Amino acid sequence: MPGVVDKKLAELGIVLPTPAAPVANYVPFVRSGNLLIVSGQLCFDADGKLVAKGQLGAGVSIDDGAKAARACAVNLIAHLKSALGDLDKVTRVVRLGGFINSAPGFGDGPKVMNGASDLMVAVFGDKGRHARTTIGVSALPLDAAVEVEGAFEVS
Amino acid sequence: MPGVVDKKLAELGIVLPTPAAPVANYVPFVRSGNLLIVSGQLCFDADGKLVAKGQLGAGVSIDDGAKAARACAVNLIAHLKSALGDLDKVTRVVRLGGFINSAPGFGDGPKVMNGASDLMVAVFGDKGRHARTTIGVSALPLDAAVEVEGAFEVS
Amino acid sequence: MPGVVDKKLAELGIVLPTPAAPVANYVPFVRSGNLLIVSGQLCFDADGKLVAKGQLGAGVSIDDGAKAARACAVNLIAHLKSALGDLDKVTRVVRLGGFINSAPGFGDGPKVMNGASDLMVAVFGDKGRHARTTIGVSALPLDAAVEVEGAFEVS
Repeated sequence: MPGVVDKKLAELGIVLPTPAAPVANYVPFVRSGNLLIVSGQLCFDADGKLVAKGQLGAGVSIDDGAKAARACAVNLIAHLKSALGDLDKVTRVVRLGGFINSAPGFGDGPKVMNGASDLMVAVFGDKGRHARTTIGVSALPLDAAVEVEGAFEVS
Repeated sequence: MPGVVDKKLAELGIVLPTPAAPVANYVPFVRSGNLLIVSGQLCFDADGKLVAKGQLGAGVSIDDGAKAARACAVNLIAHLKSALGDLDKVTRVVRLGGFINSAPGFGDGPKVMNGASDLMVAVFGDKGRHARTTIGVSALPLDAAVEVEGAFEVS
Repeated sequence: MPGVVDKKLAELGIVLPTPAAPVANYVPFVRSGNLLIVSGQLCFDADGKLVAKGQLGAGVSIDDGAKAARACAVNLIAHLKSALGDLDKVTRVVRLGGFINSAPGFGDGPKVMNGASDLMVAVFGDKGRHARTTIGVSALPLDAAVEVEGAFEVS
């Protein structure tokens, strides 16, 4: 039987992808007590293609960046599903770290990162309201435009 | 009645600003168990103006960067006050993450970040001694010179 | 009597250095509950020299970067030893954060960061399998090529 969060995902038309395998020698998530740490997720779409490549402020638009951040968030949720089975076991999205591939001077990281934050709140409601740190980075794996990591409180 | 930390802030002549509202769809802090995670804070002063803009190693001096880092720390404390009411409930500053808007090759991030670290130790004493990670980033929201995030153990 | 992890370090021919003192006003690690947070470690070798300086994608090879990441991991373990006395008290490597000093467009951060991840798994076995976030940064303290921070579950 689908849970509350599963129903919300369906309402939003989101089909969780098969979680991306880590691109190297690490694991997608580690649980310690009630804290679940999910590895940084790149902006892969459901077909395993990057939603946006390159830098914000040097070719990638804010709108495309926000779509990329949203894709990172979907991938975080796919790993949560894989870790927990039941997404209703997420009691709080504690923190998102947003890494925006940015040219010097690009100051609109928060608008890009909203693509991830808005999705978390849409999917998890009040439990999705999180602390956040957004920074502009000089490079990301595979030249992805956005990477997002997450810390979650789970039951 | 002012607590120990309130008195120390008064001694240092620090008036906590009204905590800055997040610039997007997230919250300033999340508590999970005894851990309080505070979102990345930009270097706003009490009037809501950035203490320093632009990059270290490309116009912003180390001294101005350190002042900016100190302002970030004051903003973290303002959120702690808002979250806890009583700052004496902070049992340990666990970790600060320091993000220095940096031109390539700028290697003095630690001197900049000391502006934040020194303040934490001045205000919280031994409880203020924290683990720390300092990195140089290519861009920050609003082109701020410094952003600092924090994790705190609270009672 | 050497523990399991000590024996593995000996097998691998790894002699832990005297842990590097923090380069500024902070501490190398903080424990909160069963979580031990270790400050970001630069790629110092046993003689206190940086294994690699400068940027990946602009002079530093992937191979040298991976050696630098491995050195960061050795330094994390040196601090664990100092914090715990007995390395067998590490019940899980929870998360590594990898910061690769990178020119724009450098997309091979994960290959560099594997130098740290592979070592953790070699030393701690299954307990060494961790969540990970790798990003490219514009600058690092002392122009180090790599910095790695860690969160550990300890008993």
